[in-house]
Amino acid sequence: MSNHDQDPSVPADGALVGDWNPHDVELLVEAGIFTLRKIRAASPTEPGKVGEFVYIDAPDWVNVIALTADEQIVLIEQYRHGIGAVTLEIPGGSVDDGEDRVAAGLRELAEETGYTGERVEVIGTVTPNPAILNNICTTLLVINAERTCEPVLDTMEEIAVRLEPLERVPELVREGKIDHSLVIAALHFLDFVDL
Amino acid sequence: MSNHDQDPSVPADGALVGDWNPHDVELLVEAGIFTLRKIRAASPTEPGKVGEFVYIDAPDWVNVIALTADEQIVLIEQYRHGIGAVTLEIPGGSVDDGEDRVAAGLRELAEETGYTGERVEVIGTVTPNPAILNNICTTLLVINAERTCEPVLDTMEEIAVRLEPLERVPELVREGKIDHSLVIAALHFLDFVDL
Repeated sequence: MSNHDQDPSVPADGALVGDWNPHDVELLVEAGIFTLRKIRAASPTEPGKVGEFVYIDAPDWVNVIALTADEQIVLIEQYRHGIGAVTLEIPGGSVDDGEDRVAAGLRELAEETGYTGERVEVIGTVTPNPAILNNICTTLLVINAERTCEPVLDTMEEIAVRLEPLERVPELVREGKIDHSLVIAALHFLDFVDL
Repeated sequence: MSNHDQDPSVPADGALVGDWNPHDVELLVEAGIFTLRKIRAASPTEPGKVGEFVYIDAPDWVNVIALTADEQIVLIEQYRHGIGAVTLEIPGGSVDDGEDRVAAGLRELAEETGYTGERVEVIGTVTPNPAILNNICTTLLVINAERTCEPVLDTMEEIAVRLEPLERVPELVREGKIDHSLVIAALHFLDFVDL
């Protein structure tokens, strides 16, 4: 155990942090899928200290760990234009305005892979990047997933479905074959679940 | 085991995916820390299909799991303007132009927390978001970390250092106290390390 005998809610160095007071949100630019907003915010610790910060206003995201009855995970391969390479990921996408996040995850799973499942649960939630994004990403676990329909892809989406034994997943992460941070975070939540 | 007897490098549905041919990269906007670029790219599977895609051109990032001799992890609390809340994270930041990523991680650790360490290794690398970012994030493990200097913070940075027993970390993730995807991915890599 630890020799750290202070209240863990008190920072070790006694420094103060707290919520800044944001104001004057303005739309900076809309470009492609990005909406950038600029905000002015006042420090809670230093009166008069005000900064300007730019962040991406994004819809919430959802990703899905879908497992077949024989313990395979449903993965997808697609070219990603940010990194400029084909990646190996779990299915996922954005939650539409007013859409339930579980419904969104099941919709993305079906659209991208043609798989549906009989049991679904939320196993975790992350902030994809709290410094630059204002959204959250929810991870769903879908059990007894089966291919029941044809994928429905957007014009610019080219996706291949690839099944892998669940037991191979740690090796795929260690080898860097799976390297998307949101996918690895999702797989981390799976470690907390009794399958 | 699996009844999946095909070559795992062949997608289960036989669909083709491949590298798109990017061209005509243009600077779209520079705003705050964001540089947005627009690219045109041609599909490898459908002749004549060309799309336009916007991504964030970002420096590489690095984050650091620093452990003290008595198995505490060095965490930081700070207000994050994207999500608009105080978060609990591991130290980290951007790799400067021309800077070595290990040097960058040790610099960020010292600047944000005042901790330095005697052993350091790279334990993993992720793409923070291959769809919208072109960068990678490297995770360092620093062993026998000690507070040896004063933090050096930027004007707008307010950071509190907080030590937690390493064994409490899974609970902090499960409870959502730690919810930054890059931090959770870093902690996932720690599971692969013999400490």
